[in-house]
Amino acid sequence: MIELNHQGDGPLYEQIYRQLRAQILNQTLPAGTRLPSSRELAAQLQISRNTVNKAYSQLLVEGYLAAVRGSGYYVQQLPQTFAPARAPQRPGHSRRPAKPAPAVKYDLTNSSHTRNLFPKRAWRKFMLEALDTLDFEERISTLQSLEGEEVLRRPLLRYLRQIRGVHCDLDQLIITSGLQQSLDYLCQLVPATSGRVLMEEPGYPKARVIFEKNHRQVCPAALDDQGICLPAEATGYDFIYTTPSNQFPTGVMMSAARRRELLHFAAAKQAFILEDDYDSELRYYNRPVPALQSIDTLDRVVYLGTFSKILSPSLRMGYLILPKQLVAPFKETFKLYNSTVNLLNQYTVAKLLESGEYTKLVRRMNTTFKKRFEAFSAGFASFKRPLTLSQNLSGQYLLVEFSAAIDQEEMIARALAEGVRVYPTMEFWRDRAACPDNALFLGFSKIALVDIPDCIERLKRAWDD
Amino acid sequence: MIELNHQGDGPLYEQIYRQLRAQILNQTLPAGTRLPSSRELAAQLQISRNTVNKAYSQLLVEGYLAAVRGSGYYVQQLPQTFAPARAPQRPGHSRRPAKPAPAVKYDLTNSSHTRNLFPKRAWRKFMLEALDTLDFEERISTLQSLEGEEVLRRPLLRYLRQIRGVHCDLDQLIITSGLQQSLDYLCQLVPATSGRVLMEEPGYPKARVIFEKNHRQVCPAALDDQGICLPAEATGYDFIYTTPSNQFPTGVMMSAARRRELLHFAAAKQAFILEDDYDSELRYYNRPVPALQSIDTLDRVVYLGTFSKILSPSLRMGYLILPKQLVAPFKETFKLYNSTVNLLNQYTVAKLLESGEYTKLVRRMNTTFKKRFEAFSAGFASFKRPLTLSQNLSGQYLLVEFSAAIDQEEMIARALAEGVRVYPTMEFWRDRAACPDNALFLGFSKIALVDIPDCIERLKRAWDD
Repeated sequence: MIELNHQGDGPLYEQIYRQLRAQILNQTLPAGTRLPSSRELAAQLQISRNTVNKAYSQLLVEGYLAAVRGSGYYVQQLPQTFAPARAPQRPGHSRRPAKPAPAVKYDLTNSSHTRNLFPKRAWRKFMLEALDTLDFEERISTLQSLEGEEVLRRPLLRYLRQIRGVHCDLDQLIITSGLQQSLDYLCQLVPATSGRVLMEEPGYPKARVIFEKNHRQVCPAALDDQGICLPAEATGYDFIYTTPSNQFPTGVMMSAARRRELLHFAAAKQAFILEDDYDSELRYYNRPVPALQSIDTLDRVVYLGTFSKILSPSLRMGYLILPKQLVAPFKETFKLYNSTVNLLNQYTVAKLLESGEYTKLVRRMNTTFKKRFEAFSAGFASFKRPLTLSQNLSGQYLLVEFSAAIDQEEMIARALAEGVRVYPTMEFWRDRAACPDNALFLGFSKIALVDIPDCIERLKRAWDD
Repeated sequence: MIELNHQGDGPLYEQIYRQLRAQILNQTLPAGTRLPSSRELAAQLQISRNTVNKAYSQLLVEGYLAAVRGSGYYVQQLPQTFAPARAPQRPGHSRRPAKPAPAVKYDLTNSSHTRNLFPKRAWRKFMLEALDTLDFEERISTLQSLEGEEVLRRPLLRYLRQIRGVHCDLDQLIITSGLQQSLDYLCQLVPATSGRVLMEEPGYPKARVIFEKNHRQVCPAALDDQGICLPAEATGYDFIYTTPSNQFPTGVMMSAARRRELLHFAAAKQAFILEDDYDSELRYYNRPVPALQSIDTLDRVVYLGTFSKILSPSLRMGYLILPKQLVAPFKETFKLYNSTVNLLNQYTVAKLLESGEYTKLVRRMNTTFKKRFEAFSAGFASFKRPLTLSQNLSGQYLLVEFSAAIDQEEMIARALAEGVRVYPTMEFWRDRAACPDNALFLGFSKIALVDIPDCIERLKRAWDD
């Protein structure tokens, strides 16, 4: 009835458990069968009684057996369809996710750096320090509340006041796992009244998708050389999502006058302005313009920032500054939520900020990206084909605008044939038909300076002949 | 008009910028005023012309000035209400978050370990290894897609097959920032049809709040000694949330027969079963019962797991296993989403699993918690006052049930007066009126073995005299 393999096949009690379980499931042992007592079976198999008891009690716990006091163990009634676990597949069998397209030498993406920009040495140093610090705190083994660690929020607040001119109290500053989570929290926090979100067109698709997932209607707002154009009609908005420091993806910076109009517009509409300040720390020719939040006297601006551009997108850390009026509702709404941001990483970034290492890093990144930006600008200046570049004063990308209409798909394919991946501007438009057919999107943060001439040569072969 | 302080107060160009900005805002310099040329102002202030130009170009960028070719810089028209940033407050002024209640010697919480259980040495070792590995991969500076790293998902899948008997392919396994995020994703993935969620009563409030935030109606299901009781009425459900291995908080383990009924019930209702297997790796007297997912032949079970119990709640990592039918919809729904789980941590946990260190850790935690569990059981056995403990076979908490009704608030207050924080069972009930008034909730994972006698003594003073 039971065969034991003393050479492996797992512990003996487990072999007994598995064989009995199988026999109950395939009804070799029908319901109601009385099993031999543990003493009998132990004798039969010439093993210790404990081993048998261990197997029996496991089957008991799982409901395959019932114990009747003074009588013994009985097989329970189980339905035919009660299927056992399938034999586990070999890992090899499991499907692998689709591989990326072949032979891309240069990927001009916007969501990635070159790996050598990750501050590995500083990260290791402060990570180990943080680990030592936390070793003396219960927090390392505790769930944290949603707003994030004061240890990080204090130096971050000092830093943001200094470089972005923001004015707020500590309880307005929340640490998140990045922009998408920040927006998701805000959609849960601010009830849908009009249910509408005014969003710059073109704009950031990864922001749009969060609004749509939260059942808000995204309404496009046109852009001019001063920034977002405010619609005349009297409809209300829950949110106005904007990128005033460096409009994504056109690179327009919102003028002082437009900023003020926007603040009053938002107040009139009872809307909250979501100021996505995604890469304003990168600034090549001027100090960053103070954040819109810094001139908001009407308590309407939510400031959104990220550590992705200076540290790494793989870090998954960002932050938001709430208007005062939303602090209490936030605490209430999320009182049963826990932060999704790893504690040790929060301590590590805190030490980067406290030590001044973060500021050094910002300077280093600015120098690096400015050089790359200028190398690309110079490269495109040498094109015979007439084209212009978006006038970004910051950021890690630019738009190439050809003076004549192009077929985006074809231009992208031709670049790819030369080993360079560039991106359509189409995806930034909610209304894709409205997308001008003469522009392409190029991120330059992933291309090392030494490679840029080769990259430009390839684009010339693709586009300029 | 402009006063420079050469002893600090920031760089000179910044002092000029700030003073001009202030004068424009308070209209000491009204709109239309022509500013002195940079040469004139430089001479006036006896500083370099570049310094002035730097200040002017900043004001130009921000829209406070306009440049008229061949004529000079003019103050732009700005509205009265255009307010400058307030002077930043000293950090000291900002409100600190509320401090916890005074003098708690022992906190019998369920969401925390003693800090000495965090595997600091192993974590440091594998974290540094992971950092070295990643140093050769572009991923360290890249945004990742939502499902998580294959590097982690492969060994995790092998581990789960082995200890939980789950059967699935790699693309069904998703890494998340913990249970709440897993549930949130599922609510976004599975459209509301009935809009109802069947949930064990009592149950886990931090799960309930996610369903409610996602506008699902939570319907309580009673419990008996076999687990969740399935309602007779014909209404449908989107989800059935359950904790079969160790019902939270009663400790009931779902019987084999009930598991099978549940699977067929779910299939009939077109509902997905959310199997929260939160602490099944902790098992004191038997091998963990195979997961419900392991006997699901109907593709209805979503398996939910976490690293909080074995590694740390502050790690913020968990995972879910989708039914095959939800894999494609998941990819589609979240194609514009990025994982919120730190990449380096995913690599570190992968190495913990690959090395076998994680399995050792599970054993160590089991030994530790079993001892603490038994010390508490023994302690309560010595109470004069008649009480029983929930028969948990796993987990990090227990329910104390007094044979007579008690005033939860008063018992909690009396324990607190002795320096011990215990928790009401009230919060686990959606319908608080239905909560039996004779039980209290005690987590034992935060109390070191040596402290348990003292902790028990305090509870005796509080409750037993």
